[in-house]
Amino acid sequence: MAGREAIVVETLADIGEFGLIARIDELLQREGLRTPGMTMGIGDDAASFLPRAGYELVVTCDAVVEGRHYLPDRISFFDLGRRSMALNISDIGAVGGKPLYAIVSLGLKGETPVADVEDLYRGFVAELNPFEASVIGGNLTKSGNGIFIDITLIGEVETGKTISRSGAVPGDVILVTGYPGQAAAGLQLLLNSRSTEDLSDHPLVKVYNTPSHRAREGQAVARTGYATAMIDTSDGFIGDLGHICKESGAGALLMREKLPVSEELRKVAMELGMDPYDLFLKDSDDYELIITCPPGHLNQIQDTISAMSHVPVTEVGRVTHASEGLKMLLPDGKQRELVVSGWDHFSK
Amino acid sequence: MAGREAIVVETLADIGEFGLIARIDELLQREGLRTPGMTMGIGDDAASFLPRAGYELVVTCDAVVEGRHYLPDRISFFDLGRRSMALNISDIGAVGGKPLYAIVSLGLKGETPVADVEDLYRGFVAELNPFEASVIGGNLTKSGNGIFIDITLIGEVETGKTISRSGAVPGDVILVTGYPGQAAAGLQLLLNSRSTEDLSDHPLVKVYNTPSHRAREGQAVARTGYATAMIDTSDGFIGDLGHICKESGAGALLMREKLPVSEELRKVAMELGMDPYDLFLKDSDDYELIITCPPGHLNQIQDTISAMSHVPVTEVGRVTHASEGLKMLLPDGKQRELVVSGWDHFSK
Repeated sequence: MAGREAIVVETLADIGEFGLIARIDELLQREGLRTPGMTMGIGDDAASFLPRAGYELVVTCDAVVEGRHYLPDRISFFDLGRRSMALNISDIGAVGGKPLYAIVSLGLKGETPVADVEDLYRGFVAELNPFEASVIGGNLTKSGNGIFIDITLIGEVETGKTISRSGAVPGDVILVTGYPGQAAAGLQLLLNSRSTEDLSDHPLVKVYNTPSHRAREGQAVARTGYATAMIDTSDGFIGDLGHICKESGAGALLMREKLPVSEELRKVAMELGMDPYDLFLKDSDDYELIITCPPGHLNQIQDTISAMSHVPVTEVGRVTHASEGLKMLLPDGKQRELVVSGWDHFSK
Repeated sequence: MAGREAIVVETLADIGEFGLIARIDELLQREGLRTPGMTMGIGDDAASFLPRAGYELVVTCDAVVEGRHYLPDRISFFDLGRRSMALNISDIGAVGGKPLYAIVSLGLKGETPVADVEDLYRGFVAELNPFEASVIGGNLTKSGNGIFIDITLIGEVETGKTISRSGAVPGDVILVTGYPGQAAAGLQLLLNSRSTEDLSDHPLVKVYNTPSHRAREGQAVARTGYATAMIDTSDGFIGDLGHICKESGAGALLMREKLPVSEELRKVAMELGMDPYDLFLKDSDDYELIITCPPGHLNQIQDTISAMSHVPVTEVGRVTHASEGLKMLLPDGKQRELVVSGWDHFSK
């Protein structure tokens, strides 16, 4: 148009698949780290690495789909990269592992700007570099309509130190890190606001868009050898406590007064007209840890985490017998049955 | 309706995400094998396994997207499972590896019948069981519109025996397994037929829908230590030979008369009015191996493969200097320049 210069945005259709692979490879070499042990990286049929003697390998996989796991207009590509990688780092940490190698599979649109994909990888790198972990391979394809980001993350744990969901025993205490429910409240804030409203600096929206993981804390807990079960709260607090109970053949009794409901969560819940305990218990998208251990080792686990991190660790209940189900003790002394209703894809 | 019983098809929406995970887990326990070394499987935050001393691990990832990598009305879910897994097994074999652990990430629709997903996993198992390999984890999510199947496959190679794309040296011979172009012809047959026409038993349609991989042959070649470079023909013969040339800093001269163009490919190409050499050289979806080695070791590599397999190994040309580019010697003695134009997503 007269008087204006056309702004040309370079898209994937302009540079093609192999052009994009080259650009990603350059970015990773410039801004990423090379994980010790890697023997062959991006650009071959497969990547390769030499595992360390004395370590088991742990593997997890999480996909993030546009419109389903994130709101495309409300998150930057950099934060989307951080978020997608953090979910996987959280899973590795939840079994006590240290992240090492990421395999990134993307479904993208031809009109996606190259700069957006580069920002996505910068987000991956921002989460991986602190662990000296790296992207060693992946796949790129055109997707039907929405973008998908599918990450497989490989980590290591000293042999025999992996913590599963299945070892909780009646009498164990139940601990939780941080303040669950904040990310769920952040999502509700976004869903209940006008799409033109910029909430990106709201602390709970930040918690939703770029959740913390507790992978370092999980690794430290695994090394103590005292935890009987551990899980991250990706399916909602009750959903995930339910997974521990089911896999361990146990029940649980929570004490409502002890649940660490943050002041900010209470405030936002009031603004939204929602029950803060519902946000804490039912909704998803926090990546805190639930840990069970014998009461005699509670202090050691709390001390281990407080020695390395400012994240609070709160005792919130006890593991019970399976026949007692999943219940919550209310302030008036009554017990309420909790219905396991975590995040479930496909459910009607 | 009067006089008829309604046929109720159970869908993913009926059983939900955790119902589906339970069904898949049961199927894998019943019909799959447990890979030695596995220490924690499906149903935790991460799977875990103990790597073998003396082995490097190799990792690959390939996604299959509905409408893009397969024609949903022309392939069964069982064959789709086989196909998706075979592509990944091919990549592991192309670096000399043995497949061990698969991580399967699916994007599905709520209305997808559960039986179809079970058939998909039966296809995975059919390809994995011969290697004592297994599905150890993954992710399930609802996808926007089309299904995606994203597989990360982990394998092992004796330390130091991995074969990359980058070791080809001028003077090396270029070998290819099998009869490339047949799968491409099968796809063209489908695209040029009426959608009501059942071509599923046509031999070249079968090659397209459920391609062979040469993973056992690739492993055997790696063990000889004589191959300088190896790749599978997933980006088309020239595209993949181009990858070897680029990564090795070399050129290549093919001899057209030596290219193993099968009788069936010639016949179908004639029916379709296409050049069989175009189908051989340019199109994708065959999963044969291109191998380079010094001329003095040609016989050892051919003997190694013929001792274990009926797959032919044909010498088709020589590695040249990079300055000579990628060329083909025609029957009349002239040389034609070959343009690297393999399968490229996103390209306009």
